Amino acid sequence: MVYIAKPQGNRRMPQTSRAPVTAALLVIGDEILSGRTKDKNIGYIAEYLTGIGIDLREVRVVPDVAEEIVGAIDALRAKHDYLFTTGGIGPTHDDITADCVAQALGVGISQDERAVAMLRERFPNPADLNESRLRMARIPHGAALIDNPISRAPGFMVGNVITMAGVPSIMQAMLDDVAPKLRTGTKMLSVSVDTGGLPEGAYGGALGDVQKAHPETMIGSYPNFDGQRFRNQIVVRARHEEPLGAAVRDVEAMLSTLHAEKKA
Amino acid sequence: MVYIAKPQGNRRMPQTSRAPVTAALLVIGDEILSGRTKDKNIGYIAEYLTGIGIDLREVRVVPDVAEEIVGAIDALRAKHDYLFTTGGIGPTHDDITADCVAQALGVGISQDERAVAMLRERFPNPADLNESRLRMARIPHGAALIDNPISRAPGFMVGNVITMAGVPSIMQAMLDDVAPKLRTGTKMLSVSVDTGGLPEGAYGGALGDVQKAHPETMIGSYPNFDGQRFRNQIVVRARHEEPLGAAVRDVEAMLSTLHAEKKA
Repeated sequence: MVYIAKPQGNRRMPQTSRAPVTAALLVIGDEILSGRTKDKNIGYIAEYLTGIGIDLREVRVVPDVAEEIVGAIDALRAKHDYLFTTGGIGPTHDDITADCVAQALGVGISQDERAVAMLRERFPNPADLNESRLRMARIPHGAALIDNPISRAPGFMVGNVITMAGVPSIMQAMLDDVAPKLRTGTKMLSVSVDTGGLPEGAYGGALGDVQKAHPETMIGSYPNFDGQRFRNQIVVRARHEEPLGAAVRDVEAMLSTLHAEKKA
Repeated sequence: MVYIAKPQGNRRMPQTSRAPVTAALLVIGDEILSGRTKDKNIGYIAEYLTGIGIDLREVRVVPDVAEEIVGAIDALRAKHDYLFTTGGIGPTHDDITADCVAQALGVGISQDERAVAMLRERFPNPADLNESRLRMARIPHGAALIDNPISRAPGFMVGNVITMAGVPSIMQAMLDDVAPKLRTGTKMLSVSVDTGGLPEGAYGGALGDVQKAHPETMIGSYPNFDGQRFRNQIVVRARHEEPLGAAVRDVEAMLSTLHAEKKA
């Protein structure tokens, strides 16, 4: 066998099913759209949410323009259990995310004394806690604060909208703080099967048949091109071990047959 | 002076203005949303389009689900001059982008003889050009093909929708092929000013005043956290050198004043 089946995630979980919990991510910032800053949060959040049993279903990146941000918040929070946002909660004039969240949710926004207390820990000298920094304490009414152990200025969760910083290390710490408070569903299990050098075109038809025979699973084929040749992975996903295992066995049998035919 | 002004892009261009040309990007693929594959195309395309005078205004990532893809194509192509898509044009059952583009645009789709001829260059043996590989020659009617020098299976442009591969090296080659055929606008010029260690909270208020005084520019502040401390850049953007230079001078003067006050 030249291909391997690599189990990913915790496959020892109980087979009881919880309803899927879905999320969207809204990345806010001109710098991502200009290419100046390369986003590092989408991949991190995608993997993190998959790991805790929340399905990321959509991502959008929008500029620092209030109507674009408010429009995206409106569309995404209505469509998913949770909406995560990154970026735009700093102290400068282009940081308008908190106001946009409040506007989209139709709630008020004002200086939050809990947030001011957090900022005071970082800026004990009252002269340093100026108007600009106090902008970071503007929090939509009714929000729960999300801890920021790095620079103290908090994120927040209001309704189903979770607003986090754009700086990756701070975003990651905020995600750790808020994640245990979220509802999660049955985790998506996943097994990758290396095709042992077989190209997509050689197994595309047969793989489609395997997918049809296993409607409880989602089967994808992912080519990697290293500059010389393609190295493909077939990924089978399902929420339960039994259908997952059955589909993986059929994928492996299909690849064995194709490898044998190739040798013959 | 501890901060530097770094010119980016070609600042020697003529001052004649062309109308802005805008674009959206639709990234298609379950593997990005599960976190299994980390997208490398968004940042590349953002930087590339900025460099040729096309403003990337929105990005969406959607799963391999026809109604999600069609819905996003509909929304984005109506809103922008161009819509770029990446992913979902390979030979397997989960590659449904071409059909979704045809559906969204209300045009037919069938096997394209120009695309078949390209695939024959890679698969000269007729037995190798099987049904699965011929899926890659399914092209929406009326499309212009986009060359794929790496694995031959083409991308295409139909209406204002530009459909490219998801594999980064192939996508990049396709972008090189299609870009010279696109309408472009006056390039966005950009200058980054390092704040010389000044934190955002120290200059946030003053920077907002600079932005107000220079409405033809867009001024952003971008914190970088290296695990120890913040290192910030102020980025001024404009389509013409004169307003750009004026705003940059004011940003530099503001930082000089704040540095002097700090020393005093």
